[in-house]
Amino acid sequence: MATKYHARIYVTLRSSVLDPAGTAVESGLKQMGYTEVESVRIGKYIEMQLTANNEDEAKQHLDEMCDRLLANTVIENYCFELSELATV
Amino acid sequence: MATKYHARIYVTLRSSVLDPAGTAVESGLKQMGYTEVESVRIGKYIEMQLTANNEDEAKQHLDEMCDRLLANTVIENYCFELSELATV
Repeated sequence: MATKYHARIYVTLRSSVLDPAGTAVESGLKQMGYTEVESVRIGKYIEMQLTANNEDEAKQHLDEMCDRLLANTVIENYCFELSELATV
Repeated sequence: MATKYHARIYVTLRSSVLDPAGTAVESGLKQMGYTEVESVRIGKYIEMQLTANNEDEAKQHLDEMCDRLLANTVIENYCFELSELATV
């Protein structure tokens, strides 16, 4: 019996890597008057549904997908959260 | 006395809006063998620090920033989480 999961994946630039998009947004916000803002960093947020036999299998497949396609682990970190949707 | 907050902002496409990038990632994952994946949607994940007098003020400013710059509310939804870092 397989289970359907909802996954939320966060891909962020490693802290040692410059983030020009984040810097641009920060400077835009400051020019708009939000001078209280600092350290803006922009990453990716990926949502998906996947079917697996159990949570461990789902986590293992997500790890592989992140390593192979979703994140560039040379410059990015990733983490994810899983929630169970239904048994199918 | 002001407080420094860490904000995590999630910007996602509205469900009625097509997500060609998500579709491309989904089809890439399927071609790699992850046929159990569906409904891939790609959004933005923004982290920032901001200083405010209290949590309500921080939330109000974040709402404004999202409405005015960070999200295009015609096609995107946003939500955020705030956590307190320090009193400064």
